[in-house]
Amino acid sequence: MPVNLLAPVAAQLLPVAGISLGIAEAGIKRADRKDLLVIKLDEGATVAGVFTTNRFCAAPVIVARKHLAAGKGIRALVINTGNANAGTGEQGLSAARSTCEALAKLLGCAPEQVLPYSTGVIMEPLPVDKIIAGMPQAIANLKADNWFDAAQAIMTTDIVAKAVSRQVQINGKTVTVTGMSKGSGMIHPNMATMLGYIATDAAIATPLLQQIVSEAANRSFNCITVDGDTSTNDALMLIASGKSGVTIDAANCAALQAVVTEVATALAQAIVRDGEGATKFITIQIEGGRDEAECKKIGYAIAHSPLVKTAFFASDPNLGRILAAIGYAGVSDLNVETLKLYLDDVLVAEKGGRAASYQEADGQRVMQQSDITICVVLNRGAVNATLWTCDFSYDYVKINASYRS
Amino acid sequence: MPVNLLAPVAAQLLPVAGISLGIAEAGIKRADRKDLLVIKLDEGATVAGVFTTNRFCAAPVIVARKHLAAGKGIRALVINTGNANAGTGEQGLSAARSTCEALAKLLGCAPEQVLPYSTGVIMEPLPVDKIIAGMPQAIANLKADNWFDAAQAIMTTDIVAKAVSRQVQINGKTVTVTGMSKGSGMIHPNMATMLGYIATDAAIATPLLQQIVSEAANRSFNCITVDGDTSTNDALMLIASGKSGVTIDAANCAALQAVVTEVATALAQAIVRDGEGATKFITIQIEGGRDEAECKKIGYAIAHSPLVKTAFFASDPNLGRILAAIGYAGVSDLNVETLKLYLDDVLVAEKGGRAASYQEADGQRVMQQSDITICVVLNRGAVNATLWTCDFSYDYVKINASYRS
Repeated sequence: MPVNLLAPVAAQLLPVAGISLGIAEAGIKRADRKDLLVIKLDEGATVAGVFTTNRFCAAPVIVARKHLAAGKGIRALVINTGNANAGTGEQGLSAARSTCEALAKLLGCAPEQVLPYSTGVIMEPLPVDKIIAGMPQAIANLKADNWFDAAQAIMTTDIVAKAVSRQVQINGKTVTVTGMSKGSGMIHPNMATMLGYIATDAAIATPLLQQIVSEAANRSFNCITVDGDTSTNDALMLIASGKSGVTIDAANCAALQAVVTEVATALAQAIVRDGEGATKFITIQIEGGRDEAECKKIGYAIAHSPLVKTAFFASDPNLGRILAAIGYAGVSDLNVETLKLYLDDVLVAEKGGRAASYQEADGQRVMQQSDITICVVLNRGAVNATLWTCDFSYDYVKINASYRS
Repeated sequence: MPVNLLAPVAAQLLPVAGISLGIAEAGIKRADRKDLLVIKLDEGATVAGVFTTNRFCAAPVIVARKHLAAGKGIRALVINTGNANAGTGEQGLSAARSTCEALAKLLGCAPEQVLPYSTGVIMEPLPVDKIIAGMPQAIANLKADNWFDAAQAIMTTDIVAKAVSRQVQINGKTVTVTGMSKGSGMIHPNMATMLGYIATDAAIATPLLQQIVSEAANRSFNCITVDGDTSTNDALMLIASGKSGVTIDAANCAALQAVVTEVATALAQAIVRDGEGATKFITIQIEGGRDEAECKKIGYAIAHSPLVKTAFFASDPNLGRILAAIGYAGVSDLNVETLKLYLDDVLVAEKGGRAASYQEADGQRVMQQSDITICVVLNRGAVNATLWTCDFSYDYVKINASYRS
């Protein structure tokens, strides 16, 4: 079960003027399941995003990048679950293009004004006919206050839907930011197996929008990991409708950046809390490093260690496994004599070994919690980094050994 | 259960003249268990080895490196299970030194002529008194044909003992090579959580011996992974007693190198076959790469992917997960259009997607096997690399969630 994560409350998800969402049951992988989402944008909206760095990136990622680059103004996004359209070669590209063409025809825009997204099983042909057949149902369902259903429609192995809204006052007016995400396994930085869509009613020119979404991704989705696998399909999109009448520029950008990053962080953390088989939510703080790269190296070595993750699952303070992970992280001049390891407020290790004050009972107490912070103080610089991950349980194996069946 | 791995037959393990082994039940972690091994070398033996690159390397690793560097001629090795003496700071170093001093006194040599090794739980104080108390029993047990019991004495979570012998004719005489290893979890290149001891009755000067053991390690223990965790205690030692009367030099080195590498590879593969919770033994061949580094990057991305490993556990040909791992391995200019993916003899993917000839039934057939080869043909160079790993099962989680209890 998700770790301290509640489903969003529909009434708390604020519509974003100029953006409507419509869902359908297209029967892509199985019947009676919301599996198709259309997001329609009023004219004048700007869109920017960041995508997976996987060399086997999926066909929709290739097409979405190309359509964004065409610069004709995006009018719709179409997202299907049940099939990732990845590892599908030329046939997959053709399927993604057909999807855009069909939706463009129905909405009366150009195919280059539609962005496609797919998530689900890899290397199976996309059932493009079912997607096209489901589009009229999704279009008929289009409405502004549909974020709750939309967040449900993009779920795959997620147990809980992920969506959040925030508001901020800028230039004396209220700006709304609402976002949703999906993802549970194949979660890794750069980026998680995730799709994320955040919309605001501020007006933001595309170059600044790109800067805001990149920064938000670096502070949120690029700081989480469940299993170290980087998906072929990841995308985080930021949409600005401009309907609030507030224009964002260099002078007032910080306020909007903060709230977008906050929404992205909440959505990213929700993915970890709903990590496949997760029973613990683990925050990893690396402090006092020389640069961000070495902090993240050490953080990810801890976060990816199956031995560390299974110890957390067992609530077993077998904390030497954390030291071992720090030691093999690849920071070749690391002095293990000067670093300190804390589990929440408990000093576990210093001077190359167990702290004299450390009591097994203290470690045990913290390990029983469902939210735990590992803090490593490197004492060799002034840079910090924070990552989020989860433990590794029987259920992770169970979910991933039976995903296709 | 170990994958297609039989326990060694005691009668097939050949003694190496000049080397005797003695075991004891020292009660280090629990009673009634072989947990202490002394290997005694006749005067004139040479010893070389490779050790963990973990920055949190264990106290015995630090002491063993120092004693080897002292160059006084090694007369004994002492190995305990049940406690790794790692993450134990100054106290741990003192415990490792005390162990060497006590054995040196009993054997009538200098402490610098003894090499210590420990394996087991991290960050617990080494019960040095129990180890010293067990030494007389181990010394009384010293005999040349004791490799079978010795291989059992160094096991931790291993299910099956690992030992093998080979002979080779050099300069018209028979040279014997016998080795043993332990390791099952925390297995990663550079190196596996493993201890390995290989002995030969050839005479080999230390610099050449170091070259032979490094090369053997690179082709064997540095090509395996179970869970991606690099231990604090890894060591592979090569001992040359010289008693066969055959001296190895540049002219006849290749023959000995081949047989040492063969023994090391058999011992390394045995560790994977006995990997914690393993049900499948997976050979990963990367062919046609530009250099070894990129071949290993891609090989390890596949070998470490929990999604790939759980699919193999489930015998589920969800082979897109392999493509995803290839894609995120970090070879930034990889052209996915030109590579081919095979599962044994079945062509699974080419031209960026599923091969036209691929039938799910063929993938299913191979996935049912307990020994499977994944072959990725990169078609961008002339370098190949081979790695070995295992799948990821419920039992891996079970073993590592309860290791200390």
